[in-house]
Order: sequence, then structure tokens, then C-alpha cells
Amino acid sequence: MPKTEYWQWYVEQFAPTEAHHHAIEETYYAGRTEFQHVAVIRTPVFGKMLVLDGDTQSSQADERIYHESLVHPALAALDRRDEVLILGGGEGATLREVLRRPDVARCTMVDIDGQVVDLSKRFLPEWGDGAFEDPRARVIIGDALAFLREDRESYAAIISDLTEPLEDSPSNPLFCEDVFVDIKRRLAPGGVYVLQASTAGFHNMRLHAKMARTLRRHYRFVRSFFTHVPAFDNDWAFLACSDAVDLAGLEAARIDAYVAGLRGENYFYDAETHRRIFSLPLYLRRELAKDGDVF
Amino acid sequence: MPKTEYWQWYVEQFAPTEAHHHAIEETYYAGRTEFQHVAVIRTPVFGKMLVLDGDTQSSQADERIYHESLVHPALAALDRRDEVLILGGGEGATLREVLRRPDVARCTMVDIDGQVVDLSKRFLPEWGDGAFEDPRARVIIGDALAFLREDRESYAAIISDLTEPLEDSPSNPLFCEDVFVDIKRRLAPGGVYVLQASTAGFHNMRLHAKMARTLRRHYRFVRSFFTHVPAFDNDWAFLACSDAVDLAGLEAARIDAYVAGLRGENYFYDAETHRRIFSLPLYLRRELAKDGDVF
Amino acid sequence: MPKTEYWQWYVEQFAPTEAHHHAIEETYYAGRTEFQHVAVIRTPVFGKMLVLDGDTQSSQADERIYHESLVHPALAALDRRDEVLILGGGEGATLREVLRRPDVARCTMVDIDGQVVDLSKRFLPEWGDGAFEDPRARVIIGDALAFLREDRESYAAIISDLTEPLEDSPSNPLFCEDVFVDIKRRLAPGGVYVLQASTAGFHNMRLHAKMARTLRRHYRFVRSFFTHVPAFDNDWAFLACSDAVDLAGLEAARIDAYVAGLRGENYFYDAETHRRIFSLPLYLRRELAKDGDVF
Amino acid sequence: MPKTEYWQWYVEQFAPTEAHHHAIEETYYAGRTEFQHVAVIRTPVFGKMLVLDGDTQSSQADERIYHESLVHPALAALDRRDEVLILGGGEGATLREVLRRPDVARCTMVDIDGQVVDLSKRFLPEWGDGAFEDPRARVIIGDALAFLREDRESYAAIISDLTEPLEDSPSNPLFCEDVFVDIKRRLAPGGVYVLQASTAGFHNMRLHAKMARTLRRHYRFVRSFFTHVPAFDNDWAFLACSDAVDLAGLEAARIDAYVAGLRGENYFYDAETHRRIFSLPLYLRRELAKDGDVF
Repeated sequence: MPKTEYWQWYVEQFAPTEAHHHAIEETYYAGRTEFQHVAVIRTPVFGKMLVLDGDTQSSQADERIYHESLVHPALAALDRRDEVLILGGGEGATLREVLRRPDVARCTMVDIDGQVVDLSKRFLPEWGDGAFEDPRARVIIGDALAFLREDRESYAAIISDLTEPLEDSPSNPLFCEDVFVDIKRRLAPGGVYVLQASTAGFHNMRLHAKMARTLRRHYRFVRSFFTHVPAFDNDWAFLACSDAVDLAGLEAARIDAYVAGLRGENYFYDAETHRRIFSLPLYLRRELAKDGDVF
Repeated sequence: MPKTEYWQWYVEQFAPTEAHHHAIEETYYAGRTEFQHVAVIRTPVFGKMLVLDGDTQSSQADERIYHESLVHPALAALDRRDEVLILGGGEGATLREVLRRPDVARCTMVDIDGQVVDLSKRFLPEWGDGAFEDPRARVIIGDALAFLREDRESYAAIISDLTEPLEDSPSNPLFCEDVFVDIKRRLAPGGVYVLQASTAGFHNMRLHAKMARTLRRHYRFVRSFFTHVPAFDNDWAFLACSDAVDLAGLEAARIDAYVAGLRGENYFYDAETHRRIFSLPLYLRRELAKDGDVF
Repeated sequence: MPKTEYWQWYVEQFAPTEAHHHAIEETYYAGRTEFQHVAVIRTPVFGKMLVLDGDTQSSQADERIYHESLVHPALAALDRRDEVLILGGGEGATLREVLRRPDVARCTMVDIDGQVVDLSKRFLPEWGDGAFEDPRARVIIGDALAFLREDRESYAAIISDLTEPLEDSPSNPLFCEDVFVDIKRRLAPGGVYVLQASTAGFHNMRLHAKMARTLRRHYRFVRSFFTHVPAFDNDWAFLACSDAVDLAGLEAARIDAYVAGLRGENYFYDAETHRRIFSLPLYLRRELAKDGDVF
Repeated sequence: MPKTEYWQWYVEQFAPTEAHHHAIEETYYAGRTEFQHVAVIRTPVFGKMLVLDGDTQSSQADERIYHESLVHPALAALDRRDEVLILGGGEGATLREVLRRPDVARCTMVDIDGQVVDLSKRFLPEWGDGAFEDPRARVIIGDALAFLREDRESYAAIISDLTEPLEDSPSNPLFCEDVFVDIKRRLAPGGVYVLQASTAGFHNMRLHAKMARTLRRHYRFVRSFFTHVPAFDNDWAFLACSDAVDLAGLEAARIDAYVAGLRGENYFYDAETHRRIFSLPLYLRRELAKDGDVF
């Protein structure tokens, strides 16, 4: 028998009966902050990965799929985008995408877990790619809930990049109707609120549909869009909310002009990708059309 | 300590360093045919699954995503669809989708592995849903290669639903330029050849791009389209080839009329879904635009 | 890439953080009886395995290590062994070992789960090896607890081959002081009560020590002995209890004469093996010498 | 759904179809030296573990079982034990056990992998427990093969604590008849050569039996002994070779006097344990009695 290879494995357990096993090439960090367990590892297929509470947050290989989807449809829809607010987003990639537009005058990011921000700066510099040092970045380590209540400014775009609102996660209190109201108060007239909004996988669309139903009470236009994010092993959904603009109807020329105005090149998003992610398959449209409970 | 639960696990090993583990509720069959290893199992999330040589072929929960994508864009593009040919497709779901259109006069299916067909009829009747008993179905157990060379008929649509052309799989000899020529000879004027065409995942687009490059030498229009298939843990790609019609440009009204003419309801596909799956993200368009090797 | 192999896996989860994974060659049965989950599988290294509630009970490859240890030291210690009682032992191997001695006139076996007995006869005939058909075998499907209270006979040896007394297992009520008293009432003068008695692994000796402490209140001689059973991934312990004979002091000549009187050949046990399994390492003797709680 | 726990797993793959999964609490080191892959991790059940080339070498919780077995029977058998030689033994625990006897004047240890020694000093100080700083310790980083050929001293005991001689492991060239001759040349008259000698598990006794057969050509007394080492998931065997003394026949009083002369307390070994580990079960004696190939 030849020698065996040594691998450590990161097991993402989606359910007691489903798990994805990733061999680990290197563990940069694994430990507990005040708020959650954090692991920063590297795998052969996905490169570096950030894992919070056993749940993959983003991977080096495909984080642009997620972050370009989260940021650019919303910003493309706006005529002015001087002030942007990010809730969560500790690894800095959402901030990076926002600041790629020179017409963003300031981007405020509020994340509760300063250690995640520090670990990301140290081990995942590709995520922030210098954004933390951009003079337009205002990074606040603190409770987004408290910030929303105390802050008096208004934002052209508010981007919610929080972890899944699981029972005992730090983001759980932020998914409730009160907070949705607080967020809307901070939105400038004509502004867009976009949020990562759980999975759109056929086996688990309910939480997303519930979020959509809740937000439809507050906004004239609420659009679901989603893309498969390989590192999540799932279709990942977002919601774009606005009283002024329907993101599903954005013109291709407008999107391409917006993208052309970004520093650097996109990996995933442009007008054709926009068409893809805002065109929903039948089963999801049916789920979204159902009545049901709200937050 | 309380008693532990008993689970058996199906481990799909995508690479030495990546695997998906599914707990098994029931094993209907696990054994070897003349051509390959076959397992028919049931899992809590995906329901029944067909697994060939350790590779998930389809799951009860999401096979319609795959099979509607494989069949309907091609048939929607045609004006006449009386004769259809399926290469592979042993589980019967591709046949089922084709025969949902009453204007299909006959659907010929050629699969090399009669045991897979028999096991599917026995354990996966939801896949065929009666299609094997439809008088319009002509099921031939035999080598698709030999069939293509001996057959003298022509088909409005040829649908290739073969397993991945891995080194030692029975479908490997079918992925080569000679066979592409044989297939085109069987295609009626104005016909469409559609094939499942490997993954479009960011980490593994090369085989798909190589297929696309090869087929572009034979057809005027060669279109990639893809969708995430959760049971495959991957984005799954297809190629639609024709000298007469560009499937990416199909009009919504035409698609919806076609879908309205199907017996029963679709789960996944209609005009909006068509727009989704034929709109490709930037990174895939870039890959497809590259030069490279061909079959 | 070549085709991957298909394996199903049986995962024995010893703790949330420790598990043994066995690839399965064949699943003969997997289902739930009135009392427990039963799986009968075959693995490349261990051959056929019986698994109750996710816990390996015995394997074809090494069950003789366990069953010879359970039965023969006790029977070797006796001068008369006409009547023997087995509590549990559904797979029939304990019965087989007892009946290999021609001077056993009758062996009564009481197991609560008739389906386990039937499945063992059907799929594990090597375990019973004809013992169920031996006219000296009296097999009673029923509650051992009720049997002990109603029965009026006495037995030279009582052999307890019950599953681990986990919280919700059917054997749990049988591990209590009252039952120990009931068992002693059924024991003939000079008789031996032997029981499988949990693990003696360094990390988990407490349950065994607690059983030993409890039984020392009832018997003059209570001896721990143990052997590694590979299929259990653990050192497995037994207790031999008697008012008449100290099994640790059995003479080699007596043991070898006893073994010579068995039909067929032993795999594991003889006088030298007896010396091995009754000689305990320091750490276990220290644990057994401690005071502590009892049942 | 509540948050899931994050675990990394160390998978020891014994065969393509058998594996033990240990959750990892901490990874102290994982990387490649000039000779092998080294991992130092901590698990909930076994504490710290040293893993070379994916193969568990020792665990904090049970390394004394292994190291006391390797060292003390041999030293107990000797009348003089002033000079001792260890081949391998990088983690320092064999050295520690040898130096617990005050009458050892010098212990020479030759290990090829200086990085393993350094990592052990840094992360596994419990293994060496100060032995590396003992003035009687002579630690040579180098090839044991070369050392044996160049050295001109003689040793009362030579203790071989090398990794398994797998095809491509650094210890492979040390398991051959030539080296056995070289070793015997370094042994003082009346000396004992003891070696870790592969598994004695029922499913894998062949390598051990082959080693035993080979050494019987060189020594008058060659004794197998073994114990279950839980972290190895296996029965682990040793061979004690001498022209002067049969270790299986060591008197209990001699052993206990020897043990009393050790600094500190044993965990596993004394006269009763000696009786256990040198008493072999039938199946192993049968295997050892067979003819077969030699190195």
C-alpha cells in the first residue's frame, strides 16, 4: 500500500441528511469571536473561503458572482448614487464593488463583528482589494440595528449583506418588520434597498418568499432575482425594493453604460447577466405568487 | 446518550477534494449492468435518484428542470416536430417530455443499457410517466453509434441525453467529430440537434467550450444555455445546434404558444425561463469566445 | 477523468466528533421493527454486519472474538452446564457457541425482537450455524424482564447479550438493580452470570465500572475481562459474576480440557487467550478500584 | 433552523472502503517536511494527535499505551540498560520512557526528520516531557541506516519506533534483512531488540507475521506481543528479539521491581499488563505458526 494523502475536511452540513465536504489545503484561522465562529480556509477548487458558524459566506473563486449581483443591479438603477449604506458585509467585497463606481461619494458599512473585518483584511485582502483604505469608505463596527435608529442621514442605496437570519445568529434580529421600516426611513427618495434574501433552491424557497411578501407591504416594486453560487451549493436570491424603479425592467443600454463606468472589469454582471438573473423560472414565480406568512 | 440514527450515505465524489454526501432513505437497487454501475436510491431532499457509475443522473425533485431544458427549447423552435430521436435517455423522462406534444408522431429512443431502462420502468415510473407505453414511442436497446450509421430516416429534432463522456463510460465514443457528422446526416432540413453538454460551472467550463467549438464547425447556429440543477451540484449546460434557427432569438409569444400546446403543466420552462437560460453570464461568454482545441 | 466508483457508506457515529465510515457492498435489509432500526449489510473488510439503531452489533469477520469471549469463560468455569439461559442474543451466535458443548442439555434464549431473529436466520445463517434448529434450543420471543419474573427454573449459566443500555433502547430497563436480583434468583447454586458490559476503552470506562460496582453487591466474585473487537472500534468488556468461582483464577488445564470438549474449533479462545482477556491493564484496574455510583 | 457547528475533520483512510473521521478542535501545524506530511491537531476524544502522511502516529490520550509497551518489556528484561538506542521516535515519548529509568546512562535517538522533532518539542511537549533536555539524551537528526553502518558502539537495547514501512515512506528501506543484520551488530551481548511491528488485527496480520518470520532467522527468541491502541483503530503489535532472554517468560516479580524503579507512575504497563500483551489469541498464534515469505 502506498502512503495515503493527508486532508482535513470542511463539512458544510446543510441538513442532517445533506452535506458538502471540501478538502482543506490551509487553515488560516479558526476560532470564535464575540458573535460567531469564524474559519478562513483554502480549498483546491474554491480557493480561500470565509465560513461563519459552519456556513460558507464567500469563496475566492466565485465571490464576484455573489457580490456583483448584490451591488450592481441596485446601483445601475439609480441616477445618483453619492451615499451608499451597507449593513454587514464584513469581508469588504461589497464595499469594494460599491467603490468601483467613482460617482459614489461615500460608502458607509456597519458590521457588528470587528474581528471578522480584521480577519478579512489580514487573510482575505483580495475581497476588499484596497476598499478599506479608500477615503470614501466609512467603516463602523457596531450594531446595524442601533445605527439605523440613531443615524439621521439618507442613502441612495442601502445594501443588506447580512448572514442568514437563523435562530441564534447575530443577524436574526435584523429580519423583522420594524427594522424594514427603520431601513426605509434611511432611504433617499427614489432610492433602492437591496438585500441578500436566502435561497431560491426548489427545496427551500419559503424564507425568500416570506421576505418578499413582507417587503411588498413597504415598497411599490419588489423584485426577486437569483443566481447559482457554486460555493453555496445553492441558488442564491436577492430582493430589490424601490418606490421609484422596477429593476426587472432596467434597459440594457443603461446597464451597459453603468458597467462601463466601473473601475476595472466585471466577472459576472452586465446587461445580459441582468436579464438572466431577473428572469425567474416558473416554479419560483408560482411560489412568489402564493399567499403566506410575513415577518 | 440516546440512540443514534442509522443512515447510509451516497457520496458523490466530484473530485478527490470535493464530495456531496446524501443520506439514503431507501436503496431500491445497486448493482452492475453490462455497461455501468446503477444505483436507484431515495434521499430526504431529492426523493428518488438514479446514479450511474457514482454520478447522479437525475432526481425526482428536480429532474423536470433538466429534462424540460433539454427538450422544450429545441421543440419550441421547430415548425414541424413529427419525428424526434433521443440518444440515451434511459430513464424515460426525455421521452416523456417529447411525447407531451401531441404533434410528435413518433419518438425513437436508442439506449445501450436495457437494464437501466428496465430498472427505471420498475423503480422510477414517475420519470417515464407512461411514455414507454405510448404507441408513438419506439424504444431501441442498442448502440446509438451503430444505429446512427444504419438508420436511414430523418428527424426534426435529435436530442442527445448521454452520460458524461468520461474516459471509460459507455457514452465516450459518442463524443467525437465523426459521430457529430453521423448525427447531422439524420437531421431533417431545418432541424435542431440539442445535447446535454457538460457543466458550465466556473471551475469546469472547458469541456463544454470544447463541444461548442467543435459543433460550430458543423452548424450555423450553436447556442449554449444552462441552468443550475441542484441534484448535480452544478450548473448544467446544453448546446442547441441548427442551420435554420437561432434558439437564443426565439420569440416569447412563440414559446408560450408552444408550451400551451403541451399536455399537462410545466414546472420550469416557459418564455421567461427561456430568457434566463439563454442569457449567459460574462465569464461564460468569455470562455466560449476563446480559441481552443476541438474533438 | 475516469469514472468514479459508487459506494454507499454506513457511518457509525460514536460521538458528534468521532465516526467510522464503512463502504457497503450490499444492503440485505434496512428497516424498522417494533423495537429498533435494523440494518444487515456487507462491507469489504468485515463481511456481513448487523447494525441495530446505528450501532454495530457483530460482524462476520470477528463475531467469534466477541461470542467466544462471552460464552466460553463462563461455561469453562462450571462443572455442570446442563441448563443455560441467554438474555437477548437475537442473531443466534451466542446460542451457537453454547450448543457447541454436548453436555448442555438445553439452552433457552429470550429475545424481545422476533424480527431480528428472523432477519438473522435469513441473512446471517453463519451466526446461528444451525443452532436455531438444534432440539436443545428453546427460543422465546418476548420480554426478558417478564420472563425472569415468571420463570421458575434455574440455570447453571445466565448469559446476558443485550444491546447497550442507552436511554431509549429496548435493553435499557434490564440494566437495574431489581433485574440483577431477578437474574440471581434464576441462577443455580454454583452458577455463573456473565454479561456483555459496555466498553473498557480508556475514554469510556465509566459505565462498565458502574456495572461492576453494582454487581459486587450481589456476588462474591465479579471479574471484568475484555478484548478489542475491531468491528466495534473499541475494547469490549464483560463481567463474570459468581458466588462459587473466580473466573480470573481458572486453571489453564481446565480451560483447555473444556475447549477440547467443544464441537468444532475455536477461533479466539483457549487458555492463553483466557489469560490475556482476564489480565487487565493498570488504568482499568485503577478505574475499577474507584468508588462511585451504582445502578 | 439553529446555527450549525463548525468542525474540520481529519479523515484517516485505512483502505478505500474504511475510514475514521475525527473532528478537529485545533490545527497546530499542517505541512510538508523534506520527508513526509506532518499534521499536529487536537480532537475532543484523543487530545493532541501527531499524523504523518495521513497516518495517526500517537495521541495524547493513549500514547502511553503504545510507548510503555514499546519500551518497558524490553528494558525490564535486561540486567544492565546503560546504553539504549532508539531508531525513529521523533515525537520524544520513547525517549521519555527510556529515561524514566535512572540506570540508563545514555539514550541515543536517531530520527531522519528534524522538523518532526522540532514540531514535537513545540506543540507536543507532553510527549517528550523534558526528555530532550535530559543530559543523557543524545539526539541525532539523520538517516538511521547510515548511522547503523557508521556507528561502532553497542547498546543493551535497540528500540525501533519507525513509521509503517509503506512503499514510499522514509522508513521503508529500514525494513529489510540487511538492516536487521546491521541492527544486530550494534546489540550488546544479552541485549534486546524491540520494534513496533505493524498491526495484529485479524484482517491485517500478514506484515507482522512476515517480520516475525524474518527475525526468527536472526534471534533465538522472537516474541510477538500486542495491544489495542484506540487512536490507531487497531491492535498494534511489537516484536521482542533476543538471543538471551524470552520476554514472554519474564517473571512478575522482576517486572514489578523494574516498574518500581521508574521515575513517575505508569499508566498501562506492569506485570499483569505484561501477561496480557504477551498472551496471544488463537488466531494470531495460528498465523505466526504458518510458513510464508520473509523480507
